[in-house]
Amino acid sequence: MYNPIAFRLPEALEDGDYVIATYIYQTNVNVDIHKLAYALSEEQSSGTWVNLPLETEEVLQRHIGRVISIWEIPDYETQIPKEVTERAWVIQIGYPVHNFGAQIPLMLTTVHGNIAAAGRLKLLDLNFPKAYVEQFKGPKFGIEGVRKLLGVYDRPLLHNMIKPSIGLTPEQSAEIFYQAAMGGVDAIKDDELVQSHPWSNYLDRVRLHTLAAQRAYEKTGEKTLYFVNVTDRPDRMLEKARRALEAGATGLMVNYNTVGISALSMLADDPEITVPILGHLDFSGAMYGSPWVGLSSHLVLGKLARLAGADIVVYPSSYGKFPLLDSKHLRIVTALTDRFYQIKRSWPMPGGGVHPGMIQLLYNDMKNDFMVGAGGAVHGHPMGPKAGARALREAIDAAVAGIPVEGAAEEYPELEVALKAWGISKAGVKGRYDLMEA
Amino acid sequence: MYNPIAFRLPEALEDGDYVIATYIYQTNVNVDIHKLAYALSEEQSSGTWVNLPLETEEVLQRHIGRVISIWEIPDYETQIPKEVTERAWVIQIGYPVHNFGAQIPLMLTTVHGNIAAAGRLKLLDLNFPKAYVEQFKGPKFGIEGVRKLLGVYDRPLLHNMIKPSIGLTPEQSAEIFYQAAMGGVDAIKDDELVQSHPWSNYLDRVRLHTLAAQRAYEKTGEKTLYFVNVTDRPDRMLEKARRALEAGATGLMVNYNTVGISALSMLADDPEITVPILGHLDFSGAMYGSPWVGLSSHLVLGKLARLAGADIVVYPSSYGKFPLLDSKHLRIVTALTDRFYQIKRSWPMPGGGVHPGMIQLLYNDMKNDFMVGAGGAVHGHPMGPKAGARALREAIDAAVAGIPVEGAAEEYPELEVALKAWGISKAGVKGRYDLMEA
Repeated sequence: MYNPIAFRLPEALEDGDYVIATYIYQTNVNVDIHKLAYALSEEQSSGTWVNLPLETEEVLQRHIGRVISIWEIPDYETQIPKEVTERAWVIQIGYPVHNFGAQIPLMLTTVHGNIAAAGRLKLLDLNFPKAYVEQFKGPKFGIEGVRKLLGVYDRPLLHNMIKPSIGLTPEQSAEIFYQAAMGGVDAIKDDELVQSHPWSNYLDRVRLHTLAAQRAYEKTGEKTLYFVNVTDRPDRMLEKARRALEAGATGLMVNYNTVGISALSMLADDPEITVPILGHLDFSGAMYGSPWVGLSSHLVLGKLARLAGADIVVYPSSYGKFPLLDSKHLRIVTALTDRFYQIKRSWPMPGGGVHPGMIQLLYNDMKNDFMVGAGGAVHGHPMGPKAGARALREAIDAAVAGIPVEGAAEEYPELEVALKAWGISKAGVKGRYDLMEA
Repeated sequence: MYNPIAFRLPEALEDGDYVIATYIYQTNVNVDIHKLAYALSEEQSSGTWVNLPLETEEVLQRHIGRVISIWEIPDYETQIPKEVTERAWVIQIGYPVHNFGAQIPLMLTTVHGNIAAAGRLKLLDLNFPKAYVEQFKGPKFGIEGVRKLLGVYDRPLLHNMIKPSIGLTPEQSAEIFYQAAMGGVDAIKDDELVQSHPWSNYLDRVRLHTLAAQRAYEKTGEKTLYFVNVTDRPDRMLEKARRALEAGATGLMVNYNTVGISALSMLADDPEITVPILGHLDFSGAMYGSPWVGLSSHLVLGKLARLAGADIVVYPSSYGKFPLLDSKHLRIVTALTDRFYQIKRSWPMPGGGVHPGMIQLLYNDMKNDFMVGAGGAVHGHPMGPKAGARALREAIDAAVAGIPVEGAAEEYPELEVALKAWGISKAGVKGRYDLMEA
């Protein structure tokens, strides 16, 4: 089954013809890594577990995945120490782009399909050629587009999730929407658990929340976008998105990891969808949470979401209640905001336990181009949601101005109260959950 | 934040009002498990990390997840041994069905949304009340419906994947389709890597493969269904499915783990879709492969796929190239075939390295109601695909008749050749991949 066609130098491949997948693979000590890497490349392209008469040289040349790197960690050269019982490898395979074309599902099937069930094998990265990415539209708005909608260019944005997550009537949520908007939030989104319920129809929310935004605008002169959650079966989601836009929604939200990332793509590519889209993290931990299985967080919450067209991606703040390694948070930020051919930059929106005492840490990492995702810190502020929002805006302004948040708190009572309630965060402190490294 | 409303006996809940999620959670030794379980239930229903004025008693009563079981494994009663550094818990939470309604994405967001990122937390099971499941249609055909289409009632079915996976023209694949059909396969599906490519348009495959099925039928009197892969962005998938049906497709195939399980649901519920649907396993390993993260295989490859309407689910044969514990294979089979209120039974289709010497093991487990998923063993048979198919049918007939496969091989040369090439499988032997337990 082994065939040298599959083993190539990366330099030997035609630029632009391959998507490069990087995996970590842990094996038993006596593995034949070339045989195993070939099995991966063949499984995900032309072959199977037996020789096939029609799997000709020509078919292989055109379709087989190319193993372009095999690195052992650590890099044994002469012998394997006796005490070693398992070995770890980084393997890179290039898959011809014509094998799957410009769609995300078949691309994922190819780079991490059946082999996702092959033991301790995790997809660490995906690198795409320019000509491939040019077939995708990506976000319609991105960082610059959303700034333009809001007319805010010189600071991080403040995005609020309505809390309690579930159970409010549209009248109730519109009231706290108004309070938060008066406090200066730039955008407000539904909780991911909320869509359409007997006590809260999404169209009623759109109507009442955009009215609340309008009322606040008349007083503050600041706009507030509303991202309504349209998560549902893809066809119903699209229908709900259209109706939400007719009703005046200024943003859409999708739980893209449960609807499917290509449903996000469908929504973002639709020319009738003329507002930014926010993608939410829920369920993503099921795919990235293991250090040995699944795929890295900066793919599922970063590059793939951006490729699929998310203008904003909510991910767990590494300083918040769902700890994430700081290094992973920075990988996600890079995946969302660095140059990615013609694809617009997406907003990183760290969320989950974010409060004013955490803003400086986030600002240190991302400067102006991120959205603060804050729910409880607005609606659970001891002085109410308006004060909660103000405290966050004050913390943002302090960070931008280079003023320590404690200093700013001397001027602003709502910020002082927030810092007293929730403290000032430090990097590396774990959150609400009793985490074992997965 | 702790509130006794969240801690209830299962017997205290109104039957039918809750979906019950069962998790395994590994924690550090000094955890306050009630606080942690409450954090989970609140995160996934009404609350967040701070007290909220609007999270009233009434809201909690209506919406909060109920922690109905906390079991420690092992069940310490008096003290924790000094050497213990981590503890493992089984936690059951009931979520009110009105929180999410009759759609899969928001249900998944609720039972395994944000908390999927909470460390060593894996979703082990989901139990649904009758009234909830009655809002889903499930498979249109199921086991009985597909039998009726084929007119075959008294044996396991033989389902073949075309190999090589990718690279054949429709003319080439139609020719080996014909050979396999002449050998007696009941159904043939595309490989999951194949959809529409410059060298093989799916509509050409539908036309040529159904013609091949017709030609074979005229000689054998046996029908062969063709499951064409329509995997794509959900809207394009639906459009392709419709065009495939117009062109005469007798089955549809979806890589539902990359398109999204609710896209499968959309397809299955569509009244215009009048053929059975096959769901493929690819990417599922990214969700079930870790023993501590994600969700169990019998959910993603079993209950959820069935709820979403898959008539057939391809999963890794525990005796094949992608090893799966035998016990997991049996959980998947139970999830697909046991009574599940009004939802039709789905076909378990173990695949991945399946050959004639493996049929007896599969038959022992499942008797008549499964599909043999065989690709390489048909198209890589030393005597060609027709002989490959015949050998598998002969092995199936031998198992049904209670004849050892070695005995049957004395009568059938193609079976003898297959057994010589690939042997007779035994339970518990590991497959092609060098597996470390994830």
